Amino acid sequence: MCQLLGMNCNVPTDIVFSFTGFAHRGGRTDTHHDGWGIAFFEGRGVRHFVDHQGASASPIAELIKHYPIKSTNVIAHIRKATQGQVALENCHPFVRELWGRYWVFAHNGDLKDFFPDLNGAFHPVGNTDSERAFCFLMQELRARFGDQAPDLPALRVVLIELVHQIASYGTFNMMLSDGTALFAHCSTKLCYVVRQYPFPTACLSDEDLSVDFSEVTTPNDRVAVIVTEPLTTNERWTDFQPGELKVFIDGMPVPA
Amino acid sequence: MCQLLGMNCNVPTDIVFSFTGFAHRGGRTDTHHDGWGIAFFEGRGVRHFVDHQGASASPIAELIKHYPIKSTNVIAHIRKATQGQVALENCHPFVRELWGRYWVFAHNGDLKDFFPDLNGAFHPVGNTDSERAFCFLMQELRARFGDQAPDLPALRVVLIELVHQIASYGTFNMMLSDGTALFAHCSTKLCYVVRQYPFPTACLSDEDLSVDFSEVTTPNDRVAVIVTEPLTTNERWTDFQPGELKVFIDGMPVPA
Repeated sequence: MCQLLGMNCNVPTDIVFSFTGFAHRGGRTDTHHDGWGIAFFEGRGVRHFVDHQGASASPIAELIKHYPIKSTNVIAHIRKATQGQVALENCHPFVRELWGRYWVFAHNGDLKDFFPDLNGAFHPVGNTDSERAFCFLMQELRARFGDQAPDLPALRVVLIELVHQIASYGTFNMMLSDGTALFAHCSTKLCYVVRQYPFPTACLSDEDLSVDFSEVTTPNDRVAVIVTEPLTTNERWTDFQPGELKVFIDGMPVPA
Repeated sequence: MCQLLGMNCNVPTDIVFSFTGFAHRGGRTDTHHDGWGIAFFEGRGVRHFVDHQGASASPIAELIKHYPIKSTNVIAHIRKATQGQVALENCHPFVRELWGRYWVFAHNGDLKDFFPDLNGAFHPVGNTDSERAFCFLMQELRARFGDQAPDLPALRVVLIELVHQIASYGTFNMMLSDGTALFAHCSTKLCYVVRQYPFPTACLSDEDLSVDFSEVTTPNDRVAVIVTEPLTTNERWTDFQPGELKVFIDGMPVPA
């Protein structure tokens, strides 16, 4: 099993604090040492970092812990290989282009015998169940909506149908973003917190580090952090329900 | 006009030396400060770094100058914006997936009124002539060969036809790689050198730095470096002919 971290904000925010705790799970406080990756949207563009070294030892993870890249949508992943060998092409998140936007995807879980018919424009480069699931999602969205991106309510309905179809093959906790919204689906384990005014001082579970967000934010900032297991010890994290797909925009979940 | 740097090798090699000189052109020894990017193939996987800061000031460029990522195919680009604003989504190289491989593309030049009919699976995310040209190439390759990658001779014939079609709109110096070969097309300016046994000591044009390659290589290593303008002062660089497409595999050009 891998671990997922997502961030969705109303103003570009850096993920240095949350990533610092999360990266320690990549080989130091946990056993997820078969690679890691992170993707940051900046406008329509994406910065995509992947490494097949564990995140706790990676020079690129070290850079990210100290270089405050500001983004409104971030997805990160640390990997414990269950399918596919340890190789760069198997590190999440994966990126594809659809409807003139980049889409970023990461998965935690294990899909048994999931070999969908990929007859369209999206083919896996590596050999994981996760990348097959992502290609299937992209292919089916394009098949349903053609060359034009749908509006959010229509997209949400189809995504719910597709993720449930995939989740029937096993565990499918996943995060997906096109840079405007962050979609998160829980099969077994996912939780989130919304940080907003008055901002608390948060203490990392995985390292002896705390940050007073009120010093680095304005009263209008709002940040949702979504993760496999709570990152902090003194915030109230809300568990997803199994089978639930949540859509985050501007730092909060959008009511269905 | 931008500058291009490519490397194609028979064994995974780091690009630290060549990139160090090249990165100085991104704002220090030259005026290319509107972003930069580099993509390294590792097996089928790609590490892709882009930054809209000039390469000479970028913390990520600094990392790459000191972190010897070993690769058999690398494409780098420093940007002087001619079309499209300075934004992350307009930084080269661009990456798309076709036939279950990542394809990396970078362009130097300016295409006038190039708005091809993009009716397939590849759409630009930014607003440059370069990304439109890349999407057109990917679309046409998929249209000609369907879902199966062709062999190299067939691919070369079609690529020559397509790049000449694009080059009729302006200047189209470009590099393209799927991780197995590096394709380089010259409209106006491109040169290359093949480094092999006995390796020389090379001196960078853009910085007071030299390296004795014989200390860091074995007699079997072979490296082709392709670039807009020669990077070293004491090696013999071969100019491309205008209109020429060269294919590099295992560190040398493949005869047509």
